[in-house]
Amino acid sequence: MDCNHSKIQTFGRTHMGIVGSAAHSLVAERAFNDKELKADFSTRDAAFDTLLRLHPVLKENYYLNAKDAEDDPYETSHIDAVFVNSNGIFGLFSLREVYEYTRFWAVGSGATYALGAMHAIYDHSKSAKDIARAGAEAGAAFDTSSQMPLTMKTVRLSNSGR
Amino acid sequence: MDCNHSKIQTFGRTHMGIVGSAAHSLVAERAFNDKELKADFSTRDAAFDTLLRLHPVLKENYYLNAKDAEDDPYETSHIDAVFVNSNGIFGLFSLREVYEYTRFWAVGSGATYALGAMHAIYDHSKSAKDIARAGAEAGAAFDTSSQMPLTMKTVRLSNSGR
Amino acid sequence: MDCNHSKIQTFGRTHMGIVGSAAHSLVAERAFNDKELKADFSTRDAAFDTLLRLHPVLKENYYLNAKDAEDDPYETSHIDAVFVNSNGIFGLFSLREVYEYTRFWAVGSGATYALGAMHAIYDHSKSAKDIARAGAEAGAAFDTSSQMPLTMKTVRLSNSGR
Amino acid sequence: MDCNHSKIQTFGRTHMGIVGSAAHSLVAERAFNDKELKADFSTRDAAFDTLLRLHPVLKENYYLNAKDAEDDPYETSHIDAVFVNSNGIFGLFSLREVYEYTRFWAVGSGATYALGAMHAIYDHSKSAKDIARAGAEAGAAFDTSSQMPLTMKTVRLSNSGR
Amino acid sequence: MDCNHSKIQTFGRTHMGIVGSAAHSLVAERAFNDKELKADFSTRDAAFDTLLRLHPVLKENYYLNAKDAEDDPYETSHIDAVFVNSNGIFGLFSLREVYEYTRFWAVGSGATYALGAMHAIYDHSKSAKDIARAGAEAGAAFDTSSQMPLTMKTVRLSNSGR
Amino acid sequence: MDCNHSKIQTFGRTHMGIVGSAAHSLVAERAFNDKELKADFSTRDAAFDTLLRLHPVLKENYYLNAKDAEDDPYETSHIDAVFVNSNGIFGLFSLREVYEYTRFWAVGSGATYALGAMHAIYDHSKSAKDIARAGAEAGAAFDTSSQMPLTMKTVRLSNSGR
Amino acid sequence: MDCNHSKIQTFGRTHMGIVGSAAHSLVAERAFNDKELKADFSTRDAAFDTLLRLHPVLKENYYLNAKDAEDDPYETSHIDAVFVNSNGIFGLFSLREVYEYTRFWAVGSGATYALGAMHAIYDHSKSAKDIARAGAEAGAAFDTSSQMPLTMKTVRLSNSGR
Amino acid sequence: MDCNHSKIQTFGRTHMGIVGSAAHSLVAERAFNDKELKADFSTRDAAFDTLLRLHPVLKENYYLNAKDAEDDPYETSHIDAVFVNSNGIFGLFSLREVYEYTRFWAVGSGATYALGAMHAIYDHSKSAKDIARAGAEAGAAFDTSSQMPLTMKTVRLSNSGR
Amino acid sequence: MDCNHSKIQTFGRTHMGIVGSAAHSLVAERAFNDKELKADFSTRDAAFDTLLRLHPVLKENYYLNAKDAEDDPYETSHIDAVFVNSNGIFGLFSLREVYEYTRFWAVGSGATYALGAMHAIYDHSKSAKDIARAGAEAGAAFDTSSQMPLTMKTVRLSNSGR
Amino acid sequence: MDCNHSKIQTFGRTHMGIVGSAAHSLVAERAFNDKELKADFSTRDAAFDTLLRLHPVLKENYYLNAKDAEDDPYETSHIDAVFVNSNGIFGLFSLREVYEYTRFWAVGSGATYALGAMHAIYDHSKSAKDIARAGAEAGAAFDTSSQMPLTMKTVRLSNSGR
Amino acid sequence: MDCNHSKIQTFGRTHMGIVGSAAHSLVAERAFNDKELKADFSTRDAAFDTLLRLHPVLKENYYLNAKDAEDDPYETSHIDAVFVNSNGIFGLFSLREVYEYTRFWAVGSGATYALGAMHAIYDHSKSAKDIARAGAEAGAAFDTSSQMPLTMKTVRLSNSGR
Amino acid sequence: MDCNHSKIQTFGRTHMGIVGSAAHSLVAERAFNDKELKADFSTRDAAFDTLLRLHPVLKENYYLNAKDAEDDPYETSHIDAVFVNSNGIFGLFSLREVYEYTRFWAVGSGATYALGAMHAIYDHSKSAKDIARAGAEAGAAFDTSSQMPLTMKTVRLSNSGR
Repeated sequence: MDCNHSKIQTFGRTHMGIVGSAAHSLVAERAFNDKELKADFSTRDAAFDTLLRLHPVLKENYYLNAKDAEDDPYETSHIDAVFVNSNGIFGLFSLREVYEYTRFWAVGSGATYALGAMHAIYDHSKSAKDIARAGAEAGAAFDTSSQMPLTMKTVRLSNSGR
Repeated sequence: MDCNHSKIQTFGRTHMGIVGSAAHSLVAERAFNDKELKADFSTRDAAFDTLLRLHPVLKENYYLNAKDAEDDPYETSHIDAVFVNSNGIFGLFSLREVYEYTRFWAVGSGATYALGAMHAIYDHSKSAKDIARAGAEAGAAFDTSSQMPLTMKTVRLSNSGR
Repeated sequence: MDCNHSKIQTFGRTHMGIVGSAAHSLVAERAFNDKELKADFSTRDAAFDTLLRLHPVLKENYYLNAKDAEDDPYETSHIDAVFVNSNGIFGLFSLREVYEYTRFWAVGSGATYALGAMHAIYDHSKSAKDIARAGAEAGAAFDTSSQMPLTMKTVRLSNSGR
Repeated sequence: MDCNHSKIQTFGRTHMGIVGSAAHSLVAERAFNDKELKADFSTRDAAFDTLLRLHPVLKENYYLNAKDAEDDPYETSHIDAVFVNSNGIFGLFSLREVYEYTRFWAVGSGATYALGAMHAIYDHSKSAKDIARAGAEAGAAFDTSSQMPLTMKTVRLSNSGR
Repeated sequence: MDCNHSKIQTFGRTHMGIVGSAAHSLVAERAFNDKELKADFSTRDAAFDTLLRLHPVLKENYYLNAKDAEDDPYETSHIDAVFVNSNGIFGLFSLREVYEYTRFWAVGSGATYALGAMHAIYDHSKSAKDIARAGAEAGAAFDTSSQMPLTMKTVRLSNSGR
Repeated sequence: MDCNHSKIQTFGRTHMGIVGSAAHSLVAERAFNDKELKADFSTRDAAFDTLLRLHPVLKENYYLNAKDAEDDPYETSHIDAVFVNSNGIFGLFSLREVYEYTRFWAVGSGATYALGAMHAIYDHSKSAKDIARAGAEAGAAFDTSSQMPLTMKTVRLSNSGR
Repeated sequence: MDCNHSKIQTFGRTHMGIVGSAAHSLVAERAFNDKELKADFSTRDAAFDTLLRLHPVLKENYYLNAKDAEDDPYETSHIDAVFVNSNGIFGLFSLREVYEYTRFWAVGSGATYALGAMHAIYDHSKSAKDIARAGAEAGAAFDTSSQMPLTMKTVRLSNSGR
Repeated sequence: MDCNHSKIQTFGRTHMGIVGSAAHSLVAERAFNDKELKADFSTRDAAFDTLLRLHPVLKENYYLNAKDAEDDPYETSHIDAVFVNSNGIFGLFSLREVYEYTRFWAVGSGATYALGAMHAIYDHSKSAKDIARAGAEAGAAFDTSSQMPLTMKTVRLSNSGR
Repeated sequence: MDCNHSKIQTFGRTHMGIVGSAAHSLVAERAFNDKELKADFSTRDAAFDTLLRLHPVLKENYYLNAKDAEDDPYETSHIDAVFVNSNGIFGLFSLREVYEYTRFWAVGSGATYALGAMHAIYDHSKSAKDIARAGAEAGAAFDTSSQMPLTMKTVRLSNSGR
Repeated sequence: MDCNHSKIQTFGRTHMGIVGSAAHSLVAERAFNDKELKADFSTRDAAFDTLLRLHPVLKENYYLNAKDAEDDPYETSHIDAVFVNSNGIFGLFSLREVYEYTRFWAVGSGATYALGAMHAIYDHSKSAKDIARAGAEAGAAFDTSSQMPLTMKTVRLSNSGR
Repeated sequence: MDCNHSKIQTFGRTHMGIVGSAAHSLVAERAFNDKELKADFSTRDAAFDTLLRLHPVLKENYYLNAKDAEDDPYETSHIDAVFVNSNGIFGLFSLREVYEYTRFWAVGSGATYALGAMHAIYDHSKSAKDIARAGAEAGAAFDTSSQMPLTMKTVRLSNSGR
Repeated sequence: MDCNHSKIQTFGRTHMGIVGSAAHSLVAERAFNDKELKADFSTRDAAFDTLLRLHPVLKENYYLNAKDAEDDPYETSHIDAVFVNSNGIFGLFSLREVYEYTRFWAVGSGATYALGAMHAIYDHSKSAKDIARAGAEAGAAFDTSSQMPLTMKTVRLSNSGR
């Protein structure tokens, strides 16, 4: 019932969907847009650098609780997300891992349903929009924590042969 | 590497896919085919009756460990399965619940991927076979415990308008 | 997606809403309708007697797991329900407690929202139907495990001054 | 029996109801009124900024125990509250999340009852006062930790069409 | 809101206040009044005999969960109570211990407050009624689980020098 | 058998009874009497200020273990006490909460008995001394950790209408 | 405050002090005095035989909870005691072990203090009474769960050279 | 079999018996004898001051693990001891509590036996030596972790009327 | 150092290697050779039947502890083994599963090393003996619980094309 | 201080040292000497048969707690022992395993010291007595739960080449 | 499905296979190649020095969570790897241990299978490549977390007689 | 299979055998040989001083995890060892305790067997070498974690009367 929520946040030309704690919303809005951070998610390498710069900022200014699972090899930034831009589709995980995906990806509680759906529909689909919608609809159909309405952002890949 | 495994077992005109412990395989083969049990999975009611008759047989002859989760309201028969016959698609769960599904269903570790895939493909598919294959392929693609090859059984619904 | 589910079960002139494990549905349908049980929920006393007779039947024929919480004083019948008939509104709990309520009652995961709503609306309502609907709507609005559509049953109290 | 307690605290033109540990009472009275903090709860953004400034003050001057649940992504400020002012109704949670609500909200142990009640009464009520009273009365009726008497504060929304 | 509850139950000439699970209420009403039990609480010895006879009845007919704390030396009957009759004041505990008290006693969540109050007032009081009321009022004043109204039963001791 | 113990410590015109660990005794004697602390327990506000000043002193000079229960919102000062002076009766708790009581109060293992006793005797008593003695005697009678002899301090309230 | 308690129970010519749960008191009084048991504690062997006969009686008639510590080699009878008769001093433990002591023995929460005291005083004492009193007094002096008054029983050893 | 152990350590005119971890032995020998510490155990107050000065030295130079039990109010110095000098008998505990005893005291695994013995023999003994020996002998007789030989130190009390 | 141990037991024409508890050795020797059991391990089906007949014998005569892991679907027979005969290579597991292997198999603590070794050497080996030896040697080389000397049994497959 | 204890028990021509719970002593004395048991420990096989016959006797007559470790494959008889007779040296363990040793063996808390000692001395010793004494002395020297004096039994091996 | 992954990373003339968390990949790529680190894995000593220099860099720049298992003697660097260069084969473990192996080594979830395979094939193999391939194939065959394709790097040992 | 391991490390004239984690090996080699440490293990006092100096070096340069068991009184250095030099035989433990032994000592998993062996052989041995070998052989014979070959170092005691 909050009137300010939005599932997709846009930083420069990158659209990002952050999952998990609701507390990330206000923090990401400020921290990622802070001029001094010079956030750059254009490539896997740039994103990793951005996350390395972001981590101490989250700790100092936003009181990040960087100690999560005891046996993780690195401090956690607590943020899982998928983001897209003209360079491709990326996944970003809490230990600051960044992965690049060739076809599609999903994160969050309904992700397994969405991945199954997008895998099934991928070869028969006309557009990324169709694939994404099929993924989101499957998540919403079976996962009680995933809910419509769906917000969509489309980007043109600079280097896509599809 | 076992040379006797088969993912689908057929009892009369019902094809059943049991998931979980490998120990179910030999037991189900014998217990469900035992003449005295008069196994009947043709309807939800018949299946529930069959399971009520089966439960004491599993305990006495096959040493079923009927005490599972402490706070389950009933003793467990430990068997989760999907079965199909000319009357429809059914799910069967460990407390002997039987559900009838109108479109498709899946159980087991890769089930969420498969459900997502079948949901995505359902309206655009020409045959049950296509839907099932899409489900199984999605499970195999993402779930490390699900593996090809795929075994398929098709039944003609006696009363299907599809 | 099961096509046989129904939230309210009717035994004689009593309408009952059982909450909790889905495994109760088939069991209650059979056990409560069994002629030999002579189920009688007309009064608090009759209901308690019925539950005392029902308990060994659930254990023997339906494999009730009667050991629940270790420190409960009695074996559990595992069934929580609200039921109504011409004698009033009753609550039935897992240790076979039966309570009679003068105005309204609710059980299940959304019950607290429903109780709040019915309390708020009680004095200004024209009919039991309005009160019940307000309760169900509040549960559905806030509790993610409570869902519409709403099934309603109205009974005329034999002895009601309202 | 303490003679100084008051459920609602007023900071500037904002009325706030803090729930949880009794230890918040004296701390909030001092910290929120401290001139240097320049507490501003007028909007969601202003409130978030205020909480970011408040957090190190609570740690240094009031010995806040900022490490709460191990897997929270941020340090906790330990304060859950609802506050209202001429800009609207807001909820404030321990990781400094601020939400704005369009109709009503409640926090604390009796909140679920209150939410149900306010949901039920909302469309038929003449004033915010009536809605709030219905919520509080439902909480007091069912929740043993919620107690009358009720303290009320009414604010005129600067921008309300209701 | 149940309309049948009553804090004191009377069996023959003995008035008993049972504390703990609400499930005891219906059970005690039936089991203690059963002719075959020949319940006799007139003396400590008679009460102990009654409890020894009652225990297997509770297990067989009322499904008592007789295994409670693992390190208790005896099976539990799960019933804590205070009872009075013309022979005196008695306490009855879950392992079937029966104690006789010379002046007063209390059980339940508010018992410590009540014992303190009755101890303080004992020597200055004119009647057992005054003492009991002081105990109940202290319990209700401080213990959130103890509530008015107070039900009172007075018995004349056959052998009292007070 | 220690020859230096005393249950009541006097700081200026305030008499204080600290409960809990025996280690508080020597620490309080020194820390509260230290000139630099300027301990002032005359009012609720003054006491809270004193405790805020005291907390870092306890940590630095007396090695206070300020981390107690993990989910407490503030660091603990570990001291529970009742204190009285000419302004009234106060309770002081480990998170530095200070409460003012209008009639009487008690802390420690026998407190519930004492509160019950004082509640029972309050209206019929001639002096604060009588009330306090009744409370202490009830605690000693029932609580095996409370022991006589009783030490008493009487103060004249500057502003008391009693 | 119970008026029937007595720390020493006498069965025939044997005086026994049972420690632990208060529930042993009524049980031992009946079970040990039951003619059919033919309780005989005159020697270590006779006592062991008695305990072997007693164990099933405790289970059947007195609802003994015979499963105690999981890794005990035998079922527990839950009774620890010291007993004396003209043949000597004996200790009896929960797995039905019986030991004979040449000088003195003690069981219960104050036993270590008592054993120390009796060891210190043994050689300088004129009578068993003096030794026992020294033991009991030491226990009462230091152990908060041991209390005066002391009950004493003296037996003449049939075969004692002391 | 270590050839350097000694149960009693002498610091100035104070003889001290430290119990617990063997690691205290070398540490105490150095830390207590360090000139800069100016260890003074002559009175309860002096000892407490000494311990307050000692604590940071143990942490810095001897790597004291000052965090012990989570709910202790103060950091632990981990040292339990009894010490005697011409001013009396003292006990020293891990939170730096110092107690003065009028007659005798004992610490360590055999202490309860020793206290019992010394209590029994106190009034009939000619010298402190006799009392101490009785305590130590009782500990050694019953406690498998206490062993002879006994080391003794006698001091003349400056102010003793015994 | 026991002089009776032998890693391979022969029942009729079947050679079996049982792993796990040493307690299986004497039991298997007797139970499997008992004429009445008519043990037959010649095929997967015969072996399963034998195990179904064996299970109640193990419980009754050899006190099998048939309740193992709480969530196993069947009672456990506790025996893991590999066996070979002229029909092939079989694995036998604790829930009475029997698997047939086409090339080789291994069980026990060193099994993973052995499986790796046999997989590596299989295509280049002249005889089953060479393969088995390579497996056993690898297990002994890396697994501290596997030890030489190696006992070998060779059988001629009745139906082998190798 | 018990006057009946003896570390070695003799049954026929077999000398046995049982370790563990003191409760075994009286039980073994009776059960092993019972004529009906026909205890025979002459060989590994005879001993195993004896233990199989003994197990139900221990359960029925001596209340053996046969369920020990949850994952043991068999019920436990709870008895660990070493026994010797003219046929050799044997070890007997709680799941009824019997092992025969060629040179020496030891069980109990000091066994590792004893085994080391006997291994060191074996080749240089003149008699079994010397070896055994060396083992026992080493156990007593280092293990605080092993104590002198030593009881010894010598048997002549019927078939010994030593 | 990430398009940047590579199982072997090359630092100078050393080829390294790091196992475990996917988060090591980006970190190692940067940290090991950083000029300032002067990474040198040529010998066991050089590698240990490199790891000692690397550890604080991982903590400061890459937010290493250096506290892993509580009872490890040293902080963990969280990296397990095998590396090869012209000086030989080395293993590197999380506490910075470096081992040199004479023939082959493997780490990770399929390592036991691979070690078994390489051990079996070692003496009959023509090249290191054959040995490595046999190890990897065995791991992939049995371990569900090990997957083809295989990446290979061959180095010429500067000092190898093979 | 590591080619650099050596069980005994020599620092100056002291030979030391460190047990436990393999990670100590490289660390000790460097840290103990560092000129600045001026390691001196010649006497108990010198060794203790060396360990006090070593501890902060291990923490700073080698990332010692100094927090081990929560209730240890001091930080752990994690090193257990036996060392010998011309002054005698010493044991060194993780809290920096140093003990001097008059005859022999052993540490590690096979130590109890070795101590037993050395105790048995001590009086009959011609040389320290014989005693040490007997200890090591016994450990290797029974303890599966202790292995040959044996490395030996002999020192001449400067002050030995043996």
